[in-house]
Amino acid sequence: MEFKALKKSGIFNLLSTFGKEIFQPPGIVEWSERAKKEAAINSTVGVATGKPSEYMDSSSDKVGIFHLSAIKELYNNFKPEQIFAYAPVLGIPSVRNSWKKWIGFKLKDHNPAIESIITQPYAIPGITVGIYVLCRMFLSPTEKAILPEKRWGNYDAIIKRNIGAGIQSFTLFRENRFNYEGLKSAIVETAKNQDKAFVLLNFPNNPTGYSPDRETAEKICSTLKESVKESGKPLIVVTDDAYEGFVYDDSLKHSIFSHLAELGKDILAVKVDGITKELLFWGGRLGMITFAIPPYFGDKGEIELELENKFVGLVRATISNSTKIIQEGVASIVSEPDKFLQERERIISIIGKKANALKEELEKNSNPEILPDHFNSGFFAFLNIKDVSAEKLADHLLKKYKIGVIPFEKKKENINGLRLTFSSLSVEEIPRLVAGINNAVADLK
Amino acid sequence: MEFKALKKSGIFNLLSTFGKEIFQPPGIVEWSERAKKEAAINSTVGVATGKPSEYMDSSSDKVGIFHLSAIKELYNNFKPEQIFAYAPVLGIPSVRNSWKKWIGFKLKDHNPAIESIITQPYAIPGITVGIYVLCRMFLSPTEKAILPEKRWGNYDAIIKRNIGAGIQSFTLFRENRFNYEGLKSAIVETAKNQDKAFVLLNFPNNPTGYSPDRETAEKICSTLKESVKESGKPLIVVTDDAYEGFVYDDSLKHSIFSHLAELGKDILAVKVDGITKELLFWGGRLGMITFAIPPYFGDKGEIELELENKFVGLVRATISNSTKIIQEGVASIVSEPDKFLQERERIISIIGKKANALKEELEKNSNPEILPDHFNSGFFAFLNIKDVSAEKLADHLLKKYKIGVIPFEKKKENINGLRLTFSSLSVEEIPRLVAGINNAVADLK
Repeated sequence: MEFKALKKSGIFNLLSTFGKEIFQPPGIVEWSERAKKEAAINSTVGVATGKPSEYMDSSSDKVGIFHLSAIKELYNNFKPEQIFAYAPVLGIPSVRNSWKKWIGFKLKDHNPAIESIITQPYAIPGITVGIYVLCRMFLSPTEKAILPEKRWGNYDAIIKRNIGAGIQSFTLFRENRFNYEGLKSAIVETAKNQDKAFVLLNFPNNPTGYSPDRETAEKICSTLKESVKESGKPLIVVTDDAYEGFVYDDSLKHSIFSHLAELGKDILAVKVDGITKELLFWGGRLGMITFAIPPYFGDKGEIELELENKFVGLVRATISNSTKIIQEGVASIVSEPDKFLQERERIISIIGKKANALKEELEKNSNPEILPDHFNSGFFAFLNIKDVSAEKLADHLLKKYKIGVIPFEKKKENINGLRLTFSSLSVEEIPRLVAGINNAVADLK
Repeated sequence: MEFKALKKSGIFNLLSTFGKEIFQPPGIVEWSERAKKEAAINSTVGVATGKPSEYMDSSSDKVGIFHLSAIKELYNNFKPEQIFAYAPVLGIPSVRNSWKKWIGFKLKDHNPAIESIITQPYAIPGITVGIYVLCRMFLSPTEKAILPEKRWGNYDAIIKRNIGAGIQSFTLFRENRFNYEGLKSAIVETAKNQDKAFVLLNFPNNPTGYSPDRETAEKICSTLKESVKESGKPLIVVTDDAYEGFVYDDSLKHSIFSHLAELGKDILAVKVDGITKELLFWGGRLGMITFAIPPYFGDKGEIELELENKFVGLVRATISNSTKIIQEGVASIVSEPDKFLQERERIISIIGKKANALKEELEKNSNPEILPDHFNSGFFAFLNIKDVSAEKLADHLLKKYKIGVIPFEKKKENINGLRLTFSSLSVEEIPRLVAGINNAVADLK
């Protein structure tokens, strides 16, 4: 494959050295596809089939995939093919189709036509895999990704230790608002040393619980446009939407991806989302990668074909494919959101009450040593601690008050604080949590 | 972590540049572990919990992980924690423990004490992931892995295109037996340019359906020992045991890993196996990585701890963790092999009959243009084709005879042949398959 459409669209230049090299050669998959269409005897596939009557307590003579009834019994409501068969490298069509519609549904209030410009999502086993393969594909080891200084620790593991690339941090907040200037100068600075900029945004944010409102989202968009203009280099912006929808005030309930999707040919937007938090299916491991390819990039169909080849090349040589039964379950659930939306709203509202209770409690017991970041979403709140080491504080909190929190102490980035998970607390525990932190700070001052 | 035990054991020197660098830093995971033990209020975790009575049609006030009843209904026989909770990076303890016992069971006829020298298996989402992370960990881009020329195509994708390393091929067969000399000279040759050799063995073999008998297995072991002696460099040998147990004659029914496990301090053996074929659970995606660490490597406990840190560092930054419900199901199944062994034996015997039918049919219709490799196991047979291009033959077979097979044509490696899957055919189709191939070769001669 020559990747002509990718080159023509300008997207090719955004790929890492690795991403430029990787491709999926023709082979077994294509011969198998042809055999499915053209063959009467199909001797291409890597599975084994037979009649249930021949090996299990069944009278069925219908040839199907060999499987063990003991496993089948564990998963009662599916047909054997839905559980035991392989899935295609980038996911079964039903989950890819239904997730595309689900994205359309989630973003419809901002852009009712978003489905027409997005790609068929790639199903991968979790958002981590999504972030990893996107970074592997678009970030060379000599380049830097731009992220806020307050971020999920696994980004550092993926980008720095696994990919071997760098991170250019910017301070997330400035004067209690999003730090547009910081984002812009990070883009302009990194673009001096590389052919494009790579920005990773995560709202609702881990660890701060921050989501932008509509005005902020629009201002982030204009910041990106200005930055691209000033640097003269294109930009890829990845949204990690793990906590999409978990918003407890009037801020954006949909992903900022919808706003980023059509900012012009110099800005390529990619959305990563998944079932872990959105469908409260932590142990399921299914994430989705979706690109926005508005008409100015060129022929969307051709670009999709070439991008898929790249991702199949990488995904097949890393994880092969994702668990079938999970894909089948998610396809079935997501194609009928009415079956779960009400229940999910109730869960979001319960977590919102916990967030608000924590906010009130922190305000009631305000302490000049403890400065909470603005939080309105997600599962976490972040307390900046003034003079006491966050790690010492976390240790003391555990030992004396039996309170477990996550300390963030990165001196270089000027971070010293505690991440609190409010989503897994009861409202009743919150006053004890805040009192404990206040007392522990006082103990150590 | 300083990896003192790994350095002392000599294993550290087998790691790739990347493998030498990667580590799992202390962080959220450790704070969460401490909170589980020490905290009364646990505000560390990234999940959300509440009472079922608050959001679903349930009277239960027992706080548990938030989940959607519509998904729960799809997986009826499990408790919510078994489906919806996260699994640890390298797998839930029950599946790791039960798989270790399962390896002990599989290898008991050759070595009843194997469990005492193997590590706790790492659960990863499929054998492909196992091969990938092992190659990433032990093979630097400047190095070469040693594999037979007849091999699974995805090895090339993983090692060459994904890792960026090389492959040194050796011819699998010589005079209708395993090519010991070829293996040895590949090891001695590559060891000249790198600090260790890396060998990947796959029995039952894809694409040839070949498994060694006991005598051959022992001779492979002595070949490895001689090679290491001659090269003066250590060696890591990975066994891809995807098709373990699917053997239809008196050859090794257990993995050659058992023979390789105790060849001395210069040979580190690693086993990769999984549920795809072994438990006929194609769509499940669960593989296992297990090292043999006999006492001569040093303190097994310390080495295990350091190896796990390395693999957690890589696995968490690539796939995070593996699907919980699959792990729970496999743990439950594998801890009671009696529940499925009989059924599995019946399946193996049905596939064996197909293999034998194909063998007879090929002998009955022997053709000097078609030379089948020796096959006695797995799902495939390989026919070497003399004068006709394998790809043209496969194309012609499809078009004229409606027969689908996979062509292998690698001129540099002197390969031109067809891979036939016998495992998914009916015995009745086999004469038509062989006749079709004979006719197609005659057509094209």
